[in-house]
Amino acid sequence: MKQYLEEKKQLMDRTLQDYIQSLQIPLALKESMLYSLEAGGKRLRPILLMASYEAFNSDVAVTLSSAAALEMIHTYSLIHDDLPAMDDDDYRRGKLTNHKAFNEATAILAGDALLTYSFELISKDEKLTAVQKADLIALLAEACGPKGMVAGQILDMAAEDKTISLKELEQVHALKTGELLRYAVYAGAYLGGATKEQLNALETFAFYLGLIFQVQDDILDVTGDQAKLGKPVGSDVLNLKSTYPKLLGLDGAMEQKEWYVSKVKEALEKADVANSKLMDLTVYFSQRDH
Amino acid sequence: MKQYLEEKKQLMDRTLQDYIQSLQIPLALKESMLYSLEAGGKRLRPILLMASYEAFNSDVAVTLSSAAALEMIHTYSLIHDDLPAMDDDDYRRGKLTNHKAFNEATAILAGDALLTYSFELISKDEKLTAVQKADLIALLAEACGPKGMVAGQILDMAAEDKTISLKELEQVHALKTGELLRYAVYAGAYLGGATKEQLNALETFAFYLGLIFQVQDDILDVTGDQAKLGKPVGSDVLNLKSTYPKLLGLDGAMEQKEWYVSKVKEALEKADVANSKLMDLTVYFSQRDH
Repeated sequence: MKQYLEEKKQLMDRTLQDYIQSLQIPLALKESMLYSLEAGGKRLRPILLMASYEAFNSDVAVTLSSAAALEMIHTYSLIHDDLPAMDDDDYRRGKLTNHKAFNEATAILAGDALLTYSFELISKDEKLTAVQKADLIALLAEACGPKGMVAGQILDMAAEDKTISLKELEQVHALKTGELLRYAVYAGAYLGGATKEQLNALETFAFYLGLIFQVQDDILDVTGDQAKLGKPVGSDVLNLKSTYPKLLGLDGAMEQKEWYVSKVKEALEKADVANSKLMDLTVYFSQRDH
Repeated sequence: MKQYLEEKKQLMDRTLQDYIQSLQIPLALKESMLYSLEAGGKRLRPILLMASYEAFNSDVAVTLSSAAALEMIHTYSLIHDDLPAMDDDDYRRGKLTNHKAFNEATAILAGDALLTYSFELISKDEKLTAVQKADLIALLAEACGPKGMVAGQILDMAAEDKTISLKELEQVHALKTGELLRYAVYAGAYLGGATKEQLNALETFAFYLGLIFQVQDDILDVTGDQAKLGKPVGSDVLNLKSTYPKLLGLDGAMEQKEWYVSKVKEALEKADVANSKLMDLTVYFSQRDH
């Protein structure tokens, strides 16, 4: 698994480099875009997309534009989230945030540029049919737009400084982080040739995977190692954020995570891909220490 | 012409309303998106797209998604440009800017949402073929992304507080405002069925139209009526911005504009659409008083 993750990460690193370096654009803009793209991301989202494809097919070349687009959109969302008007973070993964390394205006524009370029990549990928391009763009725009990730961000801000229910917490996370994971799983399986039934089961898989991702994030904020995480632990408590450990206690959060893992197994069996890398990735997500 | 502009504006107003109202999203986000979309825009860009289509074809229904997407992207760019970290404007067209009416975080997210939703609209328009969707999205993303409008914004910021040459000034405007006009003209003619040669000539048309648009903007900042413009005149001088009147004098700027108009005529004749609404629109753009 470790080797698989490393190989796929390197493939994605090269792909992102190629896409950005091919742009003839003002240097300050290119440097700002590259800075955040290369700020130590593990490429989990594009790897998930490729693993989902590989559950049904081989040779991931056809997935590279939709996987790179996903990582660019994830990166844009981090740049904008870190801005003073949003979370006001100076560091991410141990490095200065984009607006600290450059300036606020450049950070806003680098985010806008990454978001826009991600749609261009897909629309111009000669390995895709026109129908695939239109379908992938519709999926991606829904996942990260006003009905998806942006809605999650708005709800997350509205939930600050107050306690919300577990159900409300799940909804915020489903939108804020889950929608991009859903796109990853769906786009990969769609390109790989999954049936409608398999795609439906995989949507359920992606939903629970997103919650596992989040509950583990919350647990690490309590139990994690600051050096490994590249950010201070305990910041959720300071920010009065609603988290799983806060709502359920630490043991309750662990139990909730195990229940989500069991739902993932069910969904993967239903999609007939329980033996694919998707199960290994779930275990990895649920046990990661950073 | 006045009636034509009014009819098309109303069509676009309704279309934008329908697209936003159909969204099931958090109220604060919807209100913020609608606020700026309804802040008194003249819809010149979508009208230009429709007029370009009508130079070749009738019934603009097929253009509505790409025209609405264009207006949403124009609006997102205004919201982000007005932010404190960018131009720091409190008013636009006599109304509070988005971040003043709501707050900075909401304004950033409303801009992100409008940008993303614009691609979704096109990708899901059942009146378009998959090839048309992919082509239009590629055109739009190029026009407003890191090679287009965003690059123009970066260069514009870099040019602040220093005098640049007429050639550099033209490049900034060609990217910052011209790229969206080029998309408008190209997308309309493409959907209308223009030939490759006609599309090429119309790109030249759009280039000069963008410069006319800008030189008139600069002239109005010197000679305009504050009440009609909805913003203070003379702000370019205060901001030490490079403008046509500053580089060429007021008479020189007028002459430059007339030369651009003559280039527009040439291009429209070459595209065999000199008798279309595109010529009337050019005259309107070159003589507008707000």
